Amino acid sequence: MPRTFVIAQGGGPTAVINQTLAGAVAEIERRYPDARILGSRHGVRGIRDGDYVDFSDVPPERMRAIGRTPGAALGSTRDKPDAAYCELVLKGLQKVGADAFIYIGGNDTAGTQQILSDAAGGAIAFVHAPKTIDNDLVENDHTPGFISAGEFVAGAFRSVDLDFRALPGVYVGIVMGRHAGFLTAAAAAWRDDEDDGPHLIYVPERPFSVPRFIDDVRSTLDKYKRCIVAVSEGVTTEDGRALVESLVPADKLERDAHGNIKLSGSDLNMAFERALAEGLPGKRARVDALGYMPRGYIGAINETDSREAYEAGVFAVDTADHGGGSVALQVENGKTVMRRVALSAVAGKTRHMPDDFLLPDANQLSAAGMAYLNRLIPEKYQIGRPFV
Amino acid sequence: MPRTFVIAQGGGPTAVINQTLAGAVAEIERRYPDARILGSRHGVRGIRDGDYVDFSDVPPERMRAIGRTPGAALGSTRDKPDAAYCELVLKGLQKVGADAFIYIGGNDTAGTQQILSDAAGGAIAFVHAPKTIDNDLVENDHTPGFISAGEFVAGAFRSVDLDFRALPGVYVGIVMGRHAGFLTAAAAAWRDDEDDGPHLIYVPERPFSVPRFIDDVRSTLDKYKRCIVAVSEGVTTEDGRALVESLVPADKLERDAHGNIKLSGSDLNMAFERALAEGLPGKRARVDALGYMPRGYIGAINETDSREAYEAGVFAVDTADHGGGSVALQVENGKTVMRRVALSAVAGKTRHMPDDFLLPDANQLSAAGMAYLNRLIPEKYQIGRPFV
Repeated sequence: MPRTFVIAQGGGPTAVINQTLAGAVAEIERRYPDARILGSRHGVRGIRDGDYVDFSDVPPERMRAIGRTPGAALGSTRDKPDAAYCELVLKGLQKVGADAFIYIGGNDTAGTQQILSDAAGGAIAFVHAPKTIDNDLVENDHTPGFISAGEFVAGAFRSVDLDFRALPGVYVGIVMGRHAGFLTAAAAAWRDDEDDGPHLIYVPERPFSVPRFIDDVRSTLDKYKRCIVAVSEGVTTEDGRALVESLVPADKLERDAHGNIKLSGSDLNMAFERALAEGLPGKRARVDALGYMPRGYIGAINETDSREAYEAGVFAVDTADHGGGSVALQVENGKTVMRRVALSAVAGKTRHMPDDFLLPDANQLSAAGMAYLNRLIPEKYQIGRPFV
Repeated sequence: MPRTFVIAQGGGPTAVINQTLAGAVAEIERRYPDARILGSRHGVRGIRDGDYVDFSDVPPERMRAIGRTPGAALGSTRDKPDAAYCELVLKGLQKVGADAFIYIGGNDTAGTQQILSDAAGGAIAFVHAPKTIDNDLVENDHTPGFISAGEFVAGAFRSVDLDFRALPGVYVGIVMGRHAGFLTAAAAAWRDDEDDGPHLIYVPERPFSVPRFIDDVRSTLDKYKRCIVAVSEGVTTEDGRALVESLVPADKLERDAHGNIKLSGSDLNMAFERALAEGLPGKRARVDALGYMPRGYIGAINETDSREAYEAGVFAVDTADHGGGSVALQVENGKTVMRRVALSAVAGKTRHMPDDFLLPDANQLSAAGMAYLNRLIPEKYQIGRPFV
């Protein structure tokens, strides 16, 4: 009997998550020309509800075009299934006679796969294919989606720095990232010298203090007449609370369906604007969130990232053939290689930015941090040095 | 005696304003190999203060690299000189023996040139070379800087639309533009069909009403399950006040040095978030300002824009040789041509988006609006249609 594969995408879309889908579909078709390949719409929800795309109806040229397109072509979900939900998903998989389920996503997605795998008891191969702009999956050197997002952030901060050389002031750019600072750190990937922005970097791995921030900005202004700041939306204060929590009254804090504080609203922008207006009165300051641009701007899809994301999809099929697991991107002798690791090694765990990526006493990257980022996100543009 | 040219840059930087500088410098060197070319730092302020770059010290390869670099390499200024300030500038120009002053900027910059020209009485040629992402200069079909900015905005909204297909909700993207809606309208330049975002466009040329906005969003959600909105920071309510003015208490409104209400803060984001939370409770909504990215993102410099900006610099030298004036980009037989027009024709005037660029009864582009944008900003990416 021909095999049945189910594929889905979970969590936030990225610039290259569709390459992983395209890679998996192409590899299944290559290995098993008779296989049935079903795409579940909106993550596991489509399996629960029986809502599928049949890839045999999709011509290869459309799949190639989808691979080049940002966003999650199958739709995504933020659902984190509990045991009861997982039971419905398992029933759904059994109903279509699935031999393997490939779920492309971050550590929550790996967690779902582990629950399903434990419940299914070996009858179905559960595969987690990595994707996250946060770069926060353990066992991975880096994750598909991070390089494109990081390149956007590096280019954005280089551009804003040039803008603020022309019209000086303070710029605070808020970058996605709840627990890991890699993407915010990427803002500094193309700094050539001390004078280049971002001059200050604040990540969730280091406690944030408003008075210290104001001091940092003030001394940067003294030196360079402008101050460019990259800050993670997930920065926390000394007491371990999200910065936004210490700045916004408790009854005004927004929370999502999981009870997590919403970091993405304007509260944090507003809080930074107020802190700057109070701490440095009269100083031109602009606070912007980079928002969704890093994770899917169509004009900044990195080729290496794109290729690796495709390869991760290909390797996910191999992983299914070996009974399941998580696909990990590791680096050996300077080359990215794919490895099969246990779902339990990745599920629910967060990889933080190593402490030695930052200088101990300054909010700036260390040589180790720069080396890591330069390897993944090499400088892309040759700029002409301004006269100011 | 060899001629002396002074060049400066004013107003907000763009992705290509340095090409105009590079074009002017190269053309002066070609026409007058002995000429002295001085770059004034931070607009007219450098002339007032005697702060110059001497371009004879700058090698051509650096000028070419600067041309490819966003931001204003000479620095810029928001100063709008009054008569007394202009007198100091005129003295500064006389002190260096200037034969011509080329000032690259928007309509305020043209205004400064007119005051100076009137005061100087013919002894110096005053030239305005156009630049503005707002595309709001009269006499011009379009302005250098607009195409790159528009292409960024078109790509940003295409990307966000793909993101929200995957994870549905409401997205409001706030785009720069105090008086003219061209750049916000560019968000829809690559819409292929009804279902594509942005579904709603709000520009300063049409009065904005919060209740109508909520109704528009609700009916879009009913149709497409998501709603992508592009809104100019300068939208005004029926009474002619800036939207932010009607939403924020008067004592909390921020104003700039000229007394203009600051449109760029988080107040407007917050106001939209609140309006959506009240009007569509429980609905996932995200409000972002695109911020400074459109005007200088290094990864989105359009080649046509770049070339035209350079040509505007070249033509500015010709305009100086004809006694001064404003360089206008006009279109004849489908080709962009440079024309010399009077400073008074451009100075202080604002070109609005033609009313027939929008549909009369919907917040969307008309065929005329689409034709204009498609001509300037042709579709750049071939996307694969998602399955959701």
